[in-house]
Amino acid sequence: MDDRVETLATGVRAGERRALAKAITLIESRRPQDRPAAEALLAALGTGDGDSLRIGLTGTPGVGKSTFIEALGLQLIAAGHRVAVLAVDPSSARSGGSILGDKTRMERLSRAPEAFIRPSPAQDQLGGVARRTRETIRLVEAAGHDIVLVETVGVGQSETLVAGMTDIFVLLLAPAGGDELQGVKRGIMELADLVLVNKADGALESQARATRADYAGALRLMRPRPDDPPGYPAALTVSAATGAGLPEAWQAVERLARARSASGARARRRAEQDLSWFREELLAMLRDHVACAPRLARLGAALESDIAQGHRTPPAAAAALMRALLSGRDDPGAAAASALDDRPEAP
Amino acid sequence: MDDRVETLATGVRAGERRALAKAITLIESRRPQDRPAAEALLAALGTGDGDSLRIGLTGTPGVGKSTFIEALGLQLIAAGHRVAVLAVDPSSARSGGSILGDKTRMERLSRAPEAFIRPSPAQDQLGGVARRTRETIRLVEAAGHDIVLVETVGVGQSETLVAGMTDIFVLLLAPAGGDELQGVKRGIMELADLVLVNKADGALESQARATRADYAGALRLMRPRPDDPPGYPAALTVSAATGAGLPEAWQAVERLARARSASGARARRRAEQDLSWFREELLAMLRDHVACAPRLARLGAALESDIAQGHRTPPAAAAALMRALLSGRDDPGAAAASALDDRPEAP
Repeated sequence: MDDRVETLATGVRAGERRALAKAITLIESRRPQDRPAAEALLAALGTGDGDSLRIGLTGTPGVGKSTFIEALGLQLIAAGHRVAVLAVDPSSARSGGSILGDKTRMERLSRAPEAFIRPSPAQDQLGGVARRTRETIRLVEAAGHDIVLVETVGVGQSETLVAGMTDIFVLLLAPAGGDELQGVKRGIMELADLVLVNKADGALESQARATRADYAGALRLMRPRPDDPPGYPAALTVSAATGAGLPEAWQAVERLARARSASGARARRRAEQDLSWFREELLAMLRDHVACAPRLARLGAALESDIAQGHRTPPAAAAALMRALLSGRDDPGAAAASALDDRPEAP
Repeated sequence: MDDRVETLATGVRAGERRALAKAITLIESRRPQDRPAAEALLAALGTGDGDSLRIGLTGTPGVGKSTFIEALGLQLIAAGHRVAVLAVDPSSARSGGSILGDKTRMERLSRAPEAFIRPSPAQDQLGGVARRTRETIRLVEAAGHDIVLVETVGVGQSETLVAGMTDIFVLLLAPAGGDELQGVKRGIMELADLVLVNKADGALESQARATRADYAGALRLMRPRPDDPPGYPAALTVSAATGAGLPEAWQAVERLARARSASGARARRRAEQDLSWFREELLAMLRDHVACAPRLARLGAALESDIAQGHRTPPAAAAALMRALLSGRDDPGAAAASALDDRPEAP
């Protein structure tokens, strides 16, 4: 391990903000030559003591997520916790306007020394964002943050990815009723351990209660997770603006977290998440390998086009790519490969 | 292509039942030496004309799925269709008692010449079952079956796999109320295009209507698929025993199928499914390759154990396996590999 990595690891472990920020920048770097140092840093920091609580959070824009995170974060800090807030939001990379990048929306929390807020890594692919966020969770935990909030605005499969790297998943909703009801994205309700209907204050309070009742009814139609205590998934109302319901919401999170720790469900979930991560990394590395080998990349693209045109079945295409991959050269028998020989070299 | 494969392909295309059964047996064979013939057969039959309708169906045991499939199947045959019924149910391989293996439960349908019923392929892994079922869909379509029902009792992720190989997904439920309510498995409701509450007859009729209303309410909380006509996902009551509601249920399927064909959503979905299939095949082939190379298999197992014990991060483990895979030998730098040198050779 080189000195730079060792210095960085020492700084992260000591909870130094600048070291942590630099470490995350190293992890997020898209320069291939930075990757060995990033991997050495992760190895040096180890896999954590496992005492942290990782919470995934999603909610549509306009639901008041920044206000909610700030209010909850300040409450947790007051209770003695050290909170990290990360984001999985590939769209922010494109628009340049990450919900967390604009820290003025969480001004008090971002100034608290016990809090660490980091916008979404800039990557083209959602999978790439998730890979880096998984590693950043390890870094903030090594720096002593015992509560990690991972938020997403829900682009593509981002909620599923966030649920796959956290212990508990929270869905934040706005009050809605009648014709306004747009409904939540498919597949999100199934991920939720806790549905929180925000803005339960002032004129919207009764609407928030009605929305909560609707979701509580829908959650009852789903089979609970076998190891969870009765009453989960739960639906509650909160007001991030007034703070009403926030202590109860946190109690609901903690009670579930304790039950899952006691039953071993949390440890099993983390072990499964690590194995999935391993498999996904392997697949991503394979994809990178194919993308970086011009002939393999062209074969892959040609095979996908063959599939789309019905010229080749998916298993036959997979077999052709697999042969090319393992032989270290293109499959000489593949029609797609020979058809490519006329094409000019990619620049 | 050898003569045996050509004869088989001709027989399948002519709609001969024995040829189709033999072709499926070849596809399902677990002997590696049968695989080239299976792939040649699939290639010879092509990727289909795309005019078929593939319907995924799930429902818990006791919901009356066999009775429903028989009633619906006979109705479709009477309307001039040729129906194939396949199953994705890895548990049946273990118990020997597939829901479809026991054809006496669908006696009239199994005797109809326009119907073809095939139990779940016998495979240890759900992924293996799904791989073979995807291929079998191509075979029954080549044999002229224009409606393919793929049913599953819902082991592991089988519903997601079935939804990933069909055009429309139907969830069959039994009437339930109050304390009996067990709820559906998580992740299932989001897959459903149509929720059918069966047994809407006699004493259970009012309970069936109440259950339908509960699910209709829950479905309204989910955002509809953007291209679908209004009213989907829909919830209806049926009685497989009396036939009540079956024509309406089929109309709901057909209306959705027509709309998705017209909008291009069906073609897009099939194209995405084919690309996923390609990627999953590649991953499965990679897994087979690792499993068949003793040193790679042991390295993979040792790396997974390293991850479980926190000795190695998932990306570091993936990188080590990737290096071993591409170099054609184990990664000499991997501690896990060197620790393995003392272990005896696997028999």
